[in-house]
Amino acid sequence: MIVSIKKGTDEAQIENLVEWLKSLNLEIHRSNGQYDTILGLVGDTSHVDIDLISGLNIVNNVARISEPYKSANRKFHPDDTVIDVCGHKIGGGNFQFIAGPCSVESSEQILSIANDIKAAGANFLRGGAFNPRTSPYAFQGMRAEGLELLEKAKAETGAPIVTEIMDLSHLPMFENVDVIQVGARNMQNFDLLQELGKTKKPILLKRGLANTLQELLMSAEYIMSEGNENIILCERGIRTYETYTRNTLDLSAVPVLHELTHLPVVVDPSHATGKAALVPSMAAAAAACGADGIMLEVHNNPTCALCDGAQSITPAQFAEVYKTVQKVREAIL
Amino acid sequence: MIVSIKKGTDEAQIENLVEWLKSLNLEIHRSNGQYDTILGLVGDTSHVDIDLISGLNIVNNVARISEPYKSANRKFHPDDTVIDVCGHKIGGGNFQFIAGPCSVESSEQILSIANDIKAAGANFLRGGAFNPRTSPYAFQGMRAEGLELLEKAKAETGAPIVTEIMDLSHLPMFENVDVIQVGARNMQNFDLLQELGKTKKPILLKRGLANTLQELLMSAEYIMSEGNENIILCERGIRTYETYTRNTLDLSAVPVLHELTHLPVVVDPSHATGKAALVPSMAAAAAACGADGIMLEVHNNPTCALCDGAQSITPAQFAEVYKTVQKVREAIL
Amino acid sequence: MIVSIKKGTDEAQIENLVEWLKSLNLEIHRSNGQYDTILGLVGDTSHVDIDLISGLNIVNNVARISEPYKSANRKFHPDDTVIDVCGHKIGGGNFQFIAGPCSVESSEQILSIANDIKAAGANFLRGGAFNPRTSPYAFQGMRAEGLELLEKAKAETGAPIVTEIMDLSHLPMFENVDVIQVGARNMQNFDLLQELGKTKKPILLKRGLANTLQELLMSAEYIMSEGNENIILCERGIRTYETYTRNTLDLSAVPVLHELTHLPVVVDPSHATGKAALVPSMAAAAAACGADGIMLEVHNNPTCALCDGAQSITPAQFAEVYKTVQKVREAIL
Amino acid sequence: MIVSIKKGTDEAQIENLVEWLKSLNLEIHRSNGQYDTILGLVGDTSHVDIDLISGLNIVNNVARISEPYKSANRKFHPDDTVIDVCGHKIGGGNFQFIAGPCSVESSEQILSIANDIKAAGANFLRGGAFNPRTSPYAFQGMRAEGLELLEKAKAETGAPIVTEIMDLSHLPMFENVDVIQVGARNMQNFDLLQELGKTKKPILLKRGLANTLQELLMSAEYIMSEGNENIILCERGIRTYETYTRNTLDLSAVPVLHELTHLPVVVDPSHATGKAALVPSMAAAAAACGADGIMLEVHNNPTCALCDGAQSITPAQFAEVYKTVQKVREAIL
Repeated sequence: MIVSIKKGTDEAQIENLVEWLKSLNLEIHRSNGQYDTILGLVGDTSHVDIDLISGLNIVNNVARISEPYKSANRKFHPDDTVIDVCGHKIGGGNFQFIAGPCSVESSEQILSIANDIKAAGANFLRGGAFNPRTSPYAFQGMRAEGLELLEKAKAETGAPIVTEIMDLSHLPMFENVDVIQVGARNMQNFDLLQELGKTKKPILLKRGLANTLQELLMSAEYIMSEGNENIILCERGIRTYETYTRNTLDLSAVPVLHELTHLPVVVDPSHATGKAALVPSMAAAAAACGADGIMLEVHNNPTCALCDGAQSITPAQFAEVYKTVQKVREAIL
Repeated sequence: MIVSIKKGTDEAQIENLVEWLKSLNLEIHRSNGQYDTILGLVGDTSHVDIDLISGLNIVNNVARISEPYKSANRKFHPDDTVIDVCGHKIGGGNFQFIAGPCSVESSEQILSIANDIKAAGANFLRGGAFNPRTSPYAFQGMRAEGLELLEKAKAETGAPIVTEIMDLSHLPMFENVDVIQVGARNMQNFDLLQELGKTKKPILLKRGLANTLQELLMSAEYIMSEGNENIILCERGIRTYETYTRNTLDLSAVPVLHELTHLPVVVDPSHATGKAALVPSMAAAAAACGADGIMLEVHNNPTCALCDGAQSITPAQFAEVYKTVQKVREAIL
Repeated sequence: MIVSIKKGTDEAQIENLVEWLKSLNLEIHRSNGQYDTILGLVGDTSHVDIDLISGLNIVNNVARISEPYKSANRKFHPDDTVIDVCGHKIGGGNFQFIAGPCSVESSEQILSIANDIKAAGANFLRGGAFNPRTSPYAFQGMRAEGLELLEKAKAETGAPIVTEIMDLSHLPMFENVDVIQVGARNMQNFDLLQELGKTKKPILLKRGLANTLQELLMSAEYIMSEGNENIILCERGIRTYETYTRNTLDLSAVPVLHELTHLPVVVDPSHATGKAALVPSMAAAAAACGADGIMLEVHNNPTCALCDGAQSITPAQFAEVYKTVQKVREAIL
Repeated sequence: MIVSIKKGTDEAQIENLVEWLKSLNLEIHRSNGQYDTILGLVGDTSHVDIDLISGLNIVNNVARISEPYKSANRKFHPDDTVIDVCGHKIGGGNFQFIAGPCSVESSEQILSIANDIKAAGANFLRGGAFNPRTSPYAFQGMRAEGLELLEKAKAETGAPIVTEIMDLSHLPMFENVDVIQVGARNMQNFDLLQELGKTKKPILLKRGLANTLQELLMSAEYIMSEGNENIILCERGIRTYETYTRNTLDLSAVPVLHELTHLPVVVDPSHATGKAALVPSMAAAAAACGADGIMLEVHNNPTCALCDGAQSITPAQFAEVYKTVQKVREAIL
């Protein structure tokens, strides 16, 4: 880490800062220039708060040379992490389709969709039992009952379940869930992340609405620092000024994350675009840039879905997407 | 709400949509134009999901004519809400200073700062016991012990306490807290909001990092829909592409919120800018545009603060800010 | 267009607005609700300024039902526009590679690269003669001399030239240029757009750094309104809060633009990402989501390039990208 | 400037980069760490392209320690620049009101407004003769005739004129203009900036819609590098995801720019908010945080204004704003 001190700063203030930095177990290399004094911080800077230092009155700016995350860092773990869920692998060249409705609505609905996506080729069933909604007046999910219906669908189809947790008090209910999803709004719910770190469950960690890739990796680090290394990262669109799509799908996140970390990366084009018509194109694009999987909303009757129907494709459309994505994956081998 | 249907849409699909809308207890007015069919939705549209409709394949676009929030809406409650905390009023012309350190660090620290800000004129003491931090390796707060130290400081100075809750499982510990703060990262933690709605505690609700003002009001609505109407909104900077400041303080939020809602609005220039040197100017600006209060980080030794020291001003600087802000408030009367 | 008037507005003010709207040759349908008065504007609203109306004190909000662009609108021109440049077609199923260096640096450099990209399969040669640079102290391009070198390269290789115009006073120098590029910073240089509209040259119009897709189409409309309909749109990344990539490539722009307009759409992954290592993945993704072409920076010695070398790939890498992109295109047929 | 090289990079590639950096007249200090090799670049780095280096495959990241602008840098010119326009000073404690209509519409209109704002206390008259509009179908300004009407208004009231230039070919028409405005869309029209640098006219340089403060200063540097140091910077709102206001007024830009540069800074709350009702609050806030002036749209009949009427206040409202702003300025002395 490099700290540039403003010209004209009192020597006493610089000394004060240097002493404090040394107390963090860092070695300090100082060089005095004509307009700035530069401090080089050597040692483990992952616990140093760059915002704190850059905000000090006497500091011009600060630059981090090494990343603040360790367990998630490819530099220290060069090989791809491969996560095995009930025999289905993801990462390290293994690609998975995760499909299903936004919300579990009934036993018939979830079973019907589960059978359809299985038949089309998907291994994983997704479905929301707890649904975070912007409005308190909107449908909030079937909750515990929804989880039971997902388990039944798994019992019948064999497809492992991916579903979202909204609060850590619900964790005991998730015992039979195969992959626990942390939604975009909870990406920085640090208490939740730490609690999930104490389980051994695979975690599907979605990027927050306005979070950087580094912050996503820091949230993965929260989970990993408690001992759980089974993390699947998910790009699901970020908020920008463009209003035509619900969010802006940042596909360059896929090759960037593959460079920075060994964890697998999946893409959710349904939530990113908010429009079913855009999903097939963006699913193909996600596969083309190297994603380790795709997560798609599929509904047997999108117009009447209780939640997010507009971004859902039908099982027939999913079967088409499945075929195209497989062909794209072969094209980039 | 106005829905524009694409040209060439099957009549059966339009009928399907109309029937579904009617099932939501809405009256539908339809008019057929040369290029579009327009549906006017009349009735209580607050529970209609605009994203769902706008994502449908047959829909061009959707426009909401009335706001999706009711309890927080000034249209239905024209008078300013005034919140009384231990005899100190906020809103409706009553202005308050909320000051204190980012983190409670020790008994001496919090008492010393509490006395200093009281002496300078602040009525409210803020201080973090639970600190949300991007990195798992950073100081996370004194937690329960921090809450006790805040209570002691209140006992000695009489200043009501404002402190952040990070998880709803901690709620029992907050019994003696006067104002419970919901941080930016938790603005859409809907389970937490609903639980807080069941208390009668004043809630200081911070705007999320990338949330619109309408989303902030929908989160207030979550709390209010459970019966708690004591909400103070807080603008604390939003994320933009500009990197010189930590966030971009959106001061126009103050007059906009005053137009849309009857709830009081305070401004936090410390977290918004991330730099102590910018705090006095932005505090004055917040007062000038009509804020009902200012929330400031004050620390007796900013350089050595365990957390966010860089954006903290000293008690002496706070005393200056206090005087300037009071003069600005008189100037705009 | 739908205008919602605030409750309690003076009848005289509403009448005033209605009269003014009628003077714009619009028919006004008015309906009075409990909380709002709604005005429906029927007729050609493409010349109505939505910002003006939405800012009026008496207006709640305004929604545009029909798009403000006409010539570029697929609604009125359902068939894909196909642009023919020296026998090479783009759009309507025809895909093109546009490749070459950021800056023309010397006769040897541009010829060598032109031959290499031709050999690899590209039909179009790009190269900057005028280079917009953030700093006045950076290399600004070879200007007129650079244009001459491009013409020589075309004479030798037969590849039509694509190069950027920075000011309309330079237009006479562009007589032998095959496709004139309007850069992101000039997307709303309306005088330049109108002047280009008076030529018959194909125009490659890049999306501005923070411009919506609708604004991009309005800029195309500026050119088309003067008579030139040969426009190729280009997505090249938008500015967001993420700093790891230079910009955020918004690939969903490709299917969205194909829905809204009949004009061809190409993608520039080089400027979007700013990093050569990300270019091959994003080029494949662009092809997968249906782009009509890709624009790539290729340099024979990227590390020593005078400008933007870091985002350039080598001719050998280009040959690989070419093959992969062709395979991806077949996969999505 | 500090460059961090990736672990495992070939020594030959590092040498290649070091040689190239030396050819830019920089001294290179190299240090080899366990995971990175660090290069410290000493000398005049203002002409080094940080994007180029950070994009190289072998580079982890790059940090600039010193600013890339020199003439605009307060570090090298500690005293405030004071600009004198016809005897009216701006900067260094001198505050000015710049007021008038968005567009010049007629002789009567501009004269009436000019007299009103003069009477209320403003010294400068603004008014657009050339109006950049998103749509080719919207009113584009009276152009040369508009400039003549502005000159007449100046002749009658004595108020110096501020008006926008849209293309450098129009420069000869601006001979009698007192302050030439460069609009947000032209902030990076570098040919125009250089041409304006060759005049001695005061330039009012508006921040682009999505430009950083550093980019604003680099654009000022373009003008200054040609010899014209009479630059007034203008914050006018930036584009964010929030849609309630037209743009987000970034008032922290005022104290930040005062720290980084010696040039005066004015604020335009009319364009930033797009709503007349928000203008008085934001004008007061701009004064409170230390702006050197305010630029306001004032129209005698806002509802019928041909352009941007919605954000215009009336002369009577301007007189109120004038008084409040003066009181706020006294409050912060």
